[in-house]
Amino acid sequence: MEKHLFIPLELRQEIALRIRKIQDAMVCNGIKSVLVNGNANIYYTSGRFFRGYTYIPAEGEAVYFVMRPLGYDFQGVKAFYIRKPEQIPDIMSENGISLPDQIGLEEGELTYSEIMRLRKAFPSMQYTDGGGVLRTARMRKTPYEIERMKTDGLHQCAVYRRIPHIYREDMTDVEFQIEIERILRLEGCLGKSRMSGRLMEINLGSVLYGENADAPTPYEFALGGAGTDPSLPVGADGSIMHAGHTVMVDMNGGFNGYQSDMTRVWRIGEIPEIALRAHECSRRILRRLEEVGKPEYPVADLYEEAMRIVKDERLEDFFMGHTQRAGFIGHGVGIELNEQPAVTPRSKDTLLDSMTIALEPKFVIPGVGAVGVENTYVVTSDGLKSITPFPEEIQEL
Amino acid sequence: MEKHLFIPLELRQEIALRIRKIQDAMVCNGIKSVLVNGNANIYYTSGRFFRGYTYIPAEGEAVYFVMRPLGYDFQGVKAFYIRKPEQIPDIMSENGISLPDQIGLEEGELTYSEIMRLRKAFPSMQYTDGGGVLRTARMRKTPYEIERMKTDGLHQCAVYRRIPHIYREDMTDVEFQIEIERILRLEGCLGKSRMSGRLMEINLGSVLYGENADAPTPYEFALGGAGTDPSLPVGADGSIMHAGHTVMVDMNGGFNGYQSDMTRVWRIGEIPEIALRAHECSRRILRRLEEVGKPEYPVADLYEEAMRIVKDERLEDFFMGHTQRAGFIGHGVGIELNEQPAVTPRSKDTLLDSMTIALEPKFVIPGVGAVGVENTYVVTSDGLKSITPFPEEIQEL
Repeated sequence: MEKHLFIPLELRQEIALRIRKIQDAMVCNGIKSVLVNGNANIYYTSGRFFRGYTYIPAEGEAVYFVMRPLGYDFQGVKAFYIRKPEQIPDIMSENGISLPDQIGLEEGELTYSEIMRLRKAFPSMQYTDGGGVLRTARMRKTPYEIERMKTDGLHQCAVYRRIPHIYREDMTDVEFQIEIERILRLEGCLGKSRMSGRLMEINLGSVLYGENADAPTPYEFALGGAGTDPSLPVGADGSIMHAGHTVMVDMNGGFNGYQSDMTRVWRIGEIPEIALRAHECSRRILRRLEEVGKPEYPVADLYEEAMRIVKDERLEDFFMGHTQRAGFIGHGVGIELNEQPAVTPRSKDTLLDSMTIALEPKFVIPGVGAVGVENTYVVTSDGLKSITPFPEEIQEL
Repeated sequence: MEKHLFIPLELRQEIALRIRKIQDAMVCNGIKSVLVNGNANIYYTSGRFFRGYTYIPAEGEAVYFVMRPLGYDFQGVKAFYIRKPEQIPDIMSENGISLPDQIGLEEGELTYSEIMRLRKAFPSMQYTDGGGVLRTARMRKTPYEIERMKTDGLHQCAVYRRIPHIYREDMTDVEFQIEIERILRLEGCLGKSRMSGRLMEINLGSVLYGENADAPTPYEFALGGAGTDPSLPVGADGSIMHAGHTVMVDMNGGFNGYQSDMTRVWRIGEIPEIALRAHECSRRILRRLEEVGKPEYPVADLYEEAMRIVKDERLEDFFMGHTQRAGFIGHGVGIELNEQPAVTPRSKDTLLDSMTIALEPKFVIPGVGAVGVENTYVVTSDGLKSITPFPEEIQEL
């Protein structure tokens, strides 16, 4: 079996940069060491997914403890194979790696049982939440990460371009979604994206046709949809698609470990004036937020500014859902679909250079369907720059 | 907006039966109450996925605390809308529902942060792990659940029947998988299955062609595959499929909240004798385990019996992987793809009537690919009965 370099040479500098970003956040927060185990954070700290742990001291080299797969070549990085986490302290002391008196664990990612097991494996230490420093570091992307996400955006646009050719009269929304899934996968979509938390269950994305857009969701998505089964109540519900309605497409943009998040709307036949007006309002909100969304701008003000425009247009009854409302208009995006910051009125974050956020001011018009646009943006000193360059107008299917 | 009955009338008896099964396990284990929040357990205790909590006392009615979606009609069950879990104790006392002095929480499902928040919400109680009684109850299926899983099996067979028609010369394994995904979805596959834990990331399943079957996995799957990206190192790797190799198909069988798990193997052109022999060995193992697999049979002995047959045939170098070996040959299956019991040599479980388990004795033959069969079975007093009735022979693509 061929030996794979644990961290490929071309990623060495990138990974070192990420570790430094985490360490900067650790120093700011007085955290002396972190033992990383969550899937997204394992990928972030090594450039690949493996089963094991990344140990990060506030200063010095990261150390990788790998359970599986077997067969890595650890050249150039400090790494050890282990069978179980209980071996880590001994291996560290045998190799002259000193443990500080405090360790951070990902309390919002790992189960209670996992955390308690790790605490036992590192006795007589102080424990703290180590998840926050990872979230902080990951919020601002490196140039390499932004390039990955731009690539995602271009693939996603290439797929969306083909959507009008997929539609056939009397198709169901599910059949329509399945054909989008197929071209997504043929374009290189990995078929699964990482999301934070248990309230984000979905298949390859959301197609919301007509009234189904108003079906309230149990999940943390902006809009809902009833789905086809009570075990997974989200998205397309199997309705045959008819004229006079909109079809909102918010499908998976994950091609390389990162992802872009983009929503566009098509119509079947003519739709009422109010739907067109609400869609234009969504675009107006995005134009405004693209302008104000510079480093230091309060994230909560993105929400308030959007709300002000919505109220000016008297469209607040339809904003972010009609029967049930989402409490946010956007979210960070990167390795996970739902990263920090959440764009809510209660946010205490401010925008920072190189954050990547998806903004999705959406409306649900009863009897018509959902309208609005979602783009993924990079925060720059010139404002928000979209990485999902696809026409925003409502086109006919 | 139409009001949906929280528990549909036709499910009332079924849900009552499940709650009684959980309560039986609670009494056996001295657990006085459980507050359920994990996704699979929410579905199990209500017949639908909602955001919220199911409170189960050791005796008496379950009480549902629902956060989302809005719009349920709670007719005939005790249920309350809440904004946050901290409201639960007050609502209970206002409604004359007395809390015992001990509460079980799902310590292997919920994050450390979630458990600590719930502990604060229920102060001055004793806490225990409530996840085990749910796993115990769910291990033995009700007749209704078995019917659901049989339906899954028939759908999955209908899809597998079409697999030979999908294959085209010079296809990549990924392209082949994408066309299987499409017919799965058109057959009604929900496009996402629930799995327990963080070590089961995958898209709609696994197609393992040739040498890629030997790529070791970081995940808890029986076999691996390198995948197409280091962020999701599992399954098909994009190779063009050539003669002289096998293609193992282990794709998603989730159509209704439950699932079946089935693996079949096809060949391209002729394959070496040893691959055919190992495949027949897998079938011989299944026949033997179907016979001995009756209630009270030790789960560990299923593993040992399989191993005995493998060693008789001197195929142990290839069993459950070649470069890296899986430590199990099967697993419970139901709402989640990986339920209890795990079929390992260290298992302390015994088979019980109406358990549903997938058995997957597989071999990896270097230079050829993976062979072997996986079926999902119901444990009966007559032995294991397959719910995945599809021809097991290796057919040519």
